[in-house]
Amino acid sequence: MNNQADKRSVYFDHQANTPVDPRVADAMVAHLRGTFGNPLSPHDFGAATLEAIERARGQVAGLIGAQPAEIYFTSCGSETNNWAVRGLAKAQEKKGKHIVSSAIEHFSVLYTLQAMEKEGYKVTYLPVDKFGLIDPAAVAAALTPETTLVTLTHASNEIGTLEPIAEIGRIVKEKGAIFHVDAVQTAGTIPVNVAELNADALTLSANLFYGPTGVAALYLKKGTRIIPFIIGGTQEEGRRAGTHNIAGIVGMGQAAELAKAEMGRLDKLVPLRDKLLARIPQIIPDYFVTGHPTQRLPGHASGYVKYIEGESMSMFLNMQGIAVSTGSACVSKALKASHVVLAIGVNEADVHGSLVLSLGRDNTEADVDYFLEKLPPIVERLRALSPLGKG
Amino acid sequence: MNNQADKRSVYFDHQANTPVDPRVADAMVAHLRGTFGNPLSPHDFGAATLEAIERARGQVAGLIGAQPAEIYFTSCGSETNNWAVRGLAKAQEKKGKHIVSSAIEHFSVLYTLQAMEKEGYKVTYLPVDKFGLIDPAAVAAALTPETTLVTLTHASNEIGTLEPIAEIGRIVKEKGAIFHVDAVQTAGTIPVNVAELNADALTLSANLFYGPTGVAALYLKKGTRIIPFIIGGTQEEGRRAGTHNIAGIVGMGQAAELAKAEMGRLDKLVPLRDKLLARIPQIIPDYFVTGHPTQRLPGHASGYVKYIEGESMSMFLNMQGIAVSTGSACVSKALKASHVVLAIGVNEADVHGSLVLSLGRDNTEADVDYFLEKLPPIVERLRALSPLGKG
Repeated sequence: MNNQADKRSVYFDHQANTPVDPRVADAMVAHLRGTFGNPLSPHDFGAATLEAIERARGQVAGLIGAQPAEIYFTSCGSETNNWAVRGLAKAQEKKGKHIVSSAIEHFSVLYTLQAMEKEGYKVTYLPVDKFGLIDPAAVAAALTPETTLVTLTHASNEIGTLEPIAEIGRIVKEKGAIFHVDAVQTAGTIPVNVAELNADALTLSANLFYGPTGVAALYLKKGTRIIPFIIGGTQEEGRRAGTHNIAGIVGMGQAAELAKAEMGRLDKLVPLRDKLLARIPQIIPDYFVTGHPTQRLPGHASGYVKYIEGESMSMFLNMQGIAVSTGSACVSKALKASHVVLAIGVNEADVHGSLVLSLGRDNTEADVDYFLEKLPPIVERLRALSPLGKG
Repeated sequence: MNNQADKRSVYFDHQANTPVDPRVADAMVAHLRGTFGNPLSPHDFGAATLEAIERARGQVAGLIGAQPAEIYFTSCGSETNNWAVRGLAKAQEKKGKHIVSSAIEHFSVLYTLQAMEKEGYKVTYLPVDKFGLIDPAAVAAALTPETTLVTLTHASNEIGTLEPIAEIGRIVKEKGAIFHVDAVQTAGTIPVNVAELNADALTLSANLFYGPTGVAALYLKKGTRIIPFIIGGTQEEGRRAGTHNIAGIVGMGQAAELAKAEMGRLDKLVPLRDKLLARIPQIIPDYFVTGHPTQRLPGHASGYVKYIEGESMSMFLNMQGIAVSTGSACVSKALKASHVVLAIGVNEADVHGSLVLSLGRDNTEADVDYFLEKLPPIVERLRALSPLGKG
């Protein structure tokens, strides 16, 4: 009997990276094979590129309800978060040096904040509840006259909980601080509107909504001051130097337009997600869901399996053709206990059994069923071998 | 009679951006339509991407005589220069806070140095001679026990002069400082070998050697300490966070491999360049060549036309299908007098007539002849109209 006969290829790691939509690839290829002038150059070759970039700027703006001039292209979510946190706080340094954030931010925000603490900034890291929710009242309580910036994630890729950003934004705006939202996990996945969220600045990345890697953007509300991060040329109104990633930007624009036009396309993932959230605890003893049961990303089902290592689990699942994550892809090589899962109150020992499933538009119920069939024997086998074993 | 009958399309702006080689585009397309796993993810989708990235790292290393582990992928030359200058100096802050550079650096170096001066660093900006050459003896004289970093361009895109980097590198190494070379204009264009140049760090960018925009790299000699610039994830050995630009990196690798295999491909530009350098002064009164007459980039012919604005000249040339630059593409919108051309001793009034021609592998003698035919009537007409006019 051949165990591999029914082997499927199941990609459940869309919050680390989505495949590039073929229509996005088509748009990029046209530019890779055509337009190449430097968009700042005063000739027709440059003008053609500039036109392509400005078209993409409009497409990205359209996705989040912004004006084209409020979009600044960057190279990745991390650069964008580094820039937003540092640049927005530094631009207001004379007003104060207090920043409000949370315990579940991405490392690109967290490490920037830690570096700024060494430079004399004060940072309040708000806790989250057991579902990973930030309490808007806690934000209100944390704001002081010296608070210039509030930077919060819309959803952590590790637990998928959707934060009450619109409500928090209202509070932040009332107190006159700048509000930056890390929407890398949400923009292009669920409706994200900068006005509704009361965001002054917002990070979004193409590779989370079927665009290419290597291109992202910062939304910056008109009139918001920021210190540049990458400096040199006059690109992006002098706010982000560096020759434009032409094909990447075109791809991001195309992906944004498609994500907007097809915004309901991930709704079908909700019942699949809910099946995973309901079934896994039934078939795996000592498995616990992380994140909010309903207020979460449409395709996101996370939890932890006690007494085993997530890394081993993911490797055995990989042998069955199933790609999952054990946390943030950005640190998975580091094998550190996730600060996000710790923040929701999971014991340090249990964090290592973290299992993050993030479904995408091509996943089917058959994929879910295949996963649910393959997981139990793997867990059983690992628990039999595990030094972390029960008892 | 139709003046447009013989109109050509002549691209003379290769130091701003080269077209993407079709073979590079092919390699990128294969990845845009295929590989998409996050290279840090512990599954086969990620492993396939990781393999593609590591292959590209080897290809880029091969171009400059480095080891693959000494290559760090970034998003552009500006990011790389920002990182190198700041990161290398900061990593040695305890040893000293003196940096040696020159008057003809790219703005991504210059602005970083200026920012660091405000933070307490001391920077020596070495002058250049009338050909744009930095004197190795001046470097030797500028080095003090507090000098931790020397950062110099291999060639400025505005004047094309090839600096005596190998000789300077020897001096810097004798004194124990770190040597960073901005080789954006030379790597992939002429032979660049990090050992021969005595470079500890070197910036190179794919879009100058028929690769895509949006991807560049820092060579960092094994054992050289650097503070990260973009922080967050553990990508690039924890030294450069941010999800990898997968297709871009694959493209840069392919472009590097081709540039190495076809290294002589730009030799044919030398006689075309020399024809331009010799002929323009003959047909345009009050035109002066900038940069070194022979020790310069193979396809680079720069100069200035007195009594007119370079921007107007480039617009009229553009109407004839000819794309040129009036300086660095990164600042051309700013219309500022070039610090590089001022540094070689050109009067501020004359700098505005700057004309930079940078030829690429597809240019022919017919392109050069077409340019030489179209330039004189444009100059004549502009001079007749010009408020800067003679007398």
